[in-house]
Amino acid sequence: MSVLVVGSVALDSVETPFGSVTEVLGGSAVYFAAAASLYTKINLVAVVGADFPTEHIQFLTERGVDTRGLEVVEGQTFRWVGRYDYEQHITETLDTRLNVFADFHPTLPPGYDNSDLVFLANIDPDLQCEVLNQVSGAQLKVVDTMNFWIRGKNESLCRAMGAVDIAIMDESEVCLLARSHNIVAAARSILKLGPKAVIVKRGEHGAIMIGDDDYFIAPAYPVDQVKDPTGAGDSFAGGFLGYLDHAKELTPQALRQAIIHGTAVASFTIAEFSIDGLRSLRRADIAHRYQELKKFTHFDDKESNL
Amino acid sequence: MSVLVVGSVALDSVETPFGSVTEVLGGSAVYFAAAASLYTKINLVAVVGADFPTEHIQFLTERGVDTRGLEVVEGQTFRWVGRYDYEQHITETLDTRLNVFADFHPTLPPGYDNSDLVFLANIDPDLQCEVLNQVSGAQLKVVDTMNFWIRGKNESLCRAMGAVDIAIMDESEVCLLARSHNIVAAARSILKLGPKAVIVKRGEHGAIMIGDDDYFIAPAYPVDQVKDPTGAGDSFAGGFLGYLDHAKELTPQALRQAIIHGTAVASFTIAEFSIDGLRSLRRADIAHRYQELKKFTHFDDKESNL
Repeated sequence: MSVLVVGSVALDSVETPFGSVTEVLGGSAVYFAAAASLYTKINLVAVVGADFPTEHIQFLTERGVDTRGLEVVEGQTFRWVGRYDYEQHITETLDTRLNVFADFHPTLPPGYDNSDLVFLANIDPDLQCEVLNQVSGAQLKVVDTMNFWIRGKNESLCRAMGAVDIAIMDESEVCLLARSHNIVAAARSILKLGPKAVIVKRGEHGAIMIGDDDYFIAPAYPVDQVKDPTGAGDSFAGGFLGYLDHAKELTPQALRQAIIHGTAVASFTIAEFSIDGLRSLRRADIAHRYQELKKFTHFDDKESNL
Repeated sequence: MSVLVVGSVALDSVETPFGSVTEVLGGSAVYFAAAASLYTKINLVAVVGADFPTEHIQFLTERGVDTRGLEVVEGQTFRWVGRYDYEQHITETLDTRLNVFADFHPTLPPGYDNSDLVFLANIDPDLQCEVLNQVSGAQLKVVDTMNFWIRGKNESLCRAMGAVDIAIMDESEVCLLARSHNIVAAARSILKLGPKAVIVKRGEHGAIMIGDDDYFIAPAYPVDQVKDPTGAGDSFAGGFLGYLDHAKELTPQALRQAIIHGTAVASFTIAEFSIDGLRSLRRADIAHRYQELKKFTHFDDKESNL
């Protein structure tokens, strides 16, 4: 079994109340792969410039990630500069330099089209559609997106939605796409575009999965100190799809378990800058938080004979 | 068994995207009593003016609420005028006329001091302390508050916190009182003031109970249409304490069950204006949503033999 991810590889500079880092490893495909590779084999499609440090590629290959799909082209790697201020509730992009990512055109190396599960991270929905056409045999296709595409390429995005099984999106994005402030109503209107389920990411409030006949409310793992929230969503998706591929099951219960795995993985991501929280992470650590989350949410079935 | 509630009785005028109402029954003690009276006997302490419609008092007595503690004095009943705009995330107080509530001084009729459980709704913390001195034998004392008192009467509020078992507060209030943006850290610093547990209300994101050795994450019940969020928190507290009094148990598991009851009750409150969602509510309706919430949050314990 294997999981295909198509997304960005970036060098991030980030400032949070707990410190700052400059040009560290980042990007949606990286966070996803760093998480999912704890469970299964990852086929990665992305692009970097000639300036991209080889140590980062080495990290990925050491994790068993197939990097044949990571194009190295002339020019500079995608750079993102951001700042988080929790007291002011600010998430601010200070600078975005797409560089080689501006002309990114995903090309699947031989064999990648046989990936069992597919994750299309937040990229141009036209590119997402192109990839989807090449992986029509995949068992599960999952898409992420962002406000920029919802506003600017709505039609293409709706087409992509029509070709996937699950949409994983932030709460604000779900509401924007559906033009509804009610999350239940919003998710249901996105289901009409095609996906069988919408997973709504709510940050420190957890996640919700809404399907035609299913509703699952997942907690967030309580983290004392969020050093850097960058990559939380993509590593959540990585834990989610990585678990599913490993479990070889796509039942409603497996999807729920996968969300809890994604939640646990993301809680390690945000405790450190870059992907540092995932570097030495072991599956036993994830399993421990899985059990904790079970305890944190348990309440007795019977109602004390009321 | 019985529950004492001290709080406000008001005539509310409310505008939401789903309509508007004028001078309808409201107030923290009313929402609490309307919910808790579904489970047990309520002793109510509050004040109204001579203009207060007798039909409202009749509603309370029909629910078995002891209204001997509801003083009727010369003058006008407390009026509140508010507006909710969900799209703009606005909760706006347009007018507050305290009227007779400005001089409210809670007096406990004979027998009220034997109440088993006590809820001090959001009133002046000096008054909360006065009541707490008179009910020192109660099994469980619970307090609510608001930003106004956190800023204006911080010392009195901290004294009240030192004399209760549980604080039920909105997320923003918890953060303000503890001066921390991290909800886990904030709740833990409030525990140091005295309560054995802090219940953090997060609106559509559910609630969290944080104790010295316990952590419980409760979901919100998914509501398609929030007609009027007024009273959600007080009816949550009513379901919580009403259930506990009825169950005659204060174990960690009973507290968790009580939070789910409060959650279910509040979901009925916000589906209608005023207390209309609670008027014909039956315990079987609450039990049904309790079971639904159990289903919405369930995930398997084992991890598919990973």
